Amino acid sequence: MQILLTNDDGIYAPGIAALKRQIQDLGNITVVAPDIEQSGVGHSITFGHPLRVREVRLHDELLGYGVSGSPADCVKLAIYEIMDKKPDIVISGLNMGANVGIHILYSGTVAAAVEASIMGFPSIATSFEITDQYADVHDAAGAARGVIERIIKHKLPRGSLLNVNIPSRPSHQIKGIKVTRQYARDFKETFDKRVDPGGKAYYWLIGTNKSIHHEEGTDISAVNEGYISITPLRFDLTDTGLYHKIENWSWEGVPLTATNKKS
Amino acid sequence: MQILLTNDDGIYAPGIAALKRQIQDLGNITVVAPDIEQSGVGHSITFGHPLRVREVRLHDELLGYGVSGSPADCVKLAIYEIMDKKPDIVISGLNMGANVGIHILYSGTVAAAVEASIMGFPSIATSFEITDQYADVHDAAGAARGVIERIIKHKLPRGSLLNVNIPSRPSHQIKGIKVTRQYARDFKETFDKRVDPGGKAYYWLIGTNKSIHHEEGTDISAVNEGYISITPLRFDLTDTGLYHKIENWSWEGVPLTATNKKS
Repeated sequence: MQILLTNDDGIYAPGIAALKRQIQDLGNITVVAPDIEQSGVGHSITFGHPLRVREVRLHDELLGYGVSGSPADCVKLAIYEIMDKKPDIVISGLNMGANVGIHILYSGTVAAAVEASIMGFPSIATSFEITDQYADVHDAAGAARGVIERIIKHKLPRGSLLNVNIPSRPSHQIKGIKVTRQYARDFKETFDKRVDPGGKAYYWLIGTNKSIHHEEGTDISAVNEGYISITPLRFDLTDTGLYHKIENWSWEGVPLTATNKKS
Repeated sequence: MQILLTNDDGIYAPGIAALKRQIQDLGNITVVAPDIEQSGVGHSITFGHPLRVREVRLHDELLGYGVSGSPADCVKLAIYEIMDKKPDIVISGLNMGANVGIHILYSGTVAAAVEASIMGFPSIATSFEITDQYADVHDAAGAARGVIERIIKHKLPRGSLLNVNIPSRPSHQIKGIKVTRQYARDFKETFDKRVDPGGKAYYWLIGTNKSIHHEEGTDISAVNEGYISITPLRFDLTDTGLYHKIENWSWEGVPLTATNKKS
């Protein structure tokens, strides 16, 4: 079995190393991940400048390939240029921090899996809800391995994407696995306005206590309750209901010329 | 009518200025956009550090509010802290570059509209397909204005999000408006591998000729053919079909403990 392993946090991140260690007996693993020397490249595809690939070694052992681009770039380059055989599955993570709710849309970890999924490969995004109370990434990677192995056994359909989140607790205290849907509501954060010593205002975002966001059957509730959450994701965002509504609106005679040109 | 105008490219970007000029008679416009002094903040919500808001003036005129955060931060701060009245509509853009197909998922312009939409406000993301052949942002903002005015007239439902893309051609050559669905396939880019003067390999992504990606009824085809594309988007990525399939898989007895602890 050919496994492509990638992530968002960079090839030196502890999450990818821990996950690689846990899944190394499941197949031939090729690690292709962003080179952390190139940060801030964002989540999109790199067109404007060329990409570099370098072999990353640690203690003379090949760790993987570092790419000067985004997670999506890594997946494309790995499949088109780096791997000798096409992957049977693409795994992204283990991300340090949960990817649940609406923040899925802006997650590089999920972005890599989306890219693989669009290219027709089954993919799994894995994230670990790190908290101040608990952050043992090796233990979490062990839990992720159990889930990955089971998914492989069930044969994930071509182009499918599962978003897996591991709760922040020792693996022996994890209550089980729940198949969930994305929590798609507002997190209702607010701001705490303060004044700095110089008299200027600044704002802290508050409302991060995710336990208040309870909605049975969602990714966030499962993780809050101590379950591993598995959410099947699609990447077509078209709102079909709204589509049929606005298709019937009149779009005739809309003036398209600027009314007030650059002065 | 209260209009919140934001973007991804920063408060000094030509796209937001051009759009503001074109829509200024539609209502009271409050501009809250990322302060470009803070780049690379990504698309997510800022928790780890406080946000700054500053009034941005140009020739003694208040341009708007610059925020040291992401587009989503701007929307939250604008609505909770900056605007006296809640917006009737939130508009994001005009982005310099189309936001179509799968790249919608990683677009900051769309991210701002998604944030507004989750908070229950109707929102419109607007982008302009800039090409080497044509890049008149003022003209494109005029076309965007026509579409925005019509959408406002039709009364966009609460929490709805429309993704508008303006094709790269003079507005009088735009063929019309099409309600579309997201193009959700692989762009099938490949790489051109080259060797630099030092003997090291580098890769250029090729396959950017978007005209090959034809699929009737999609955002990308509409823009390629010279139409304005309007795609209604949702932000729940749950794949309901796959959900019902994997819900029936056995998830019993998955071992969750690390098999091979940190050495």
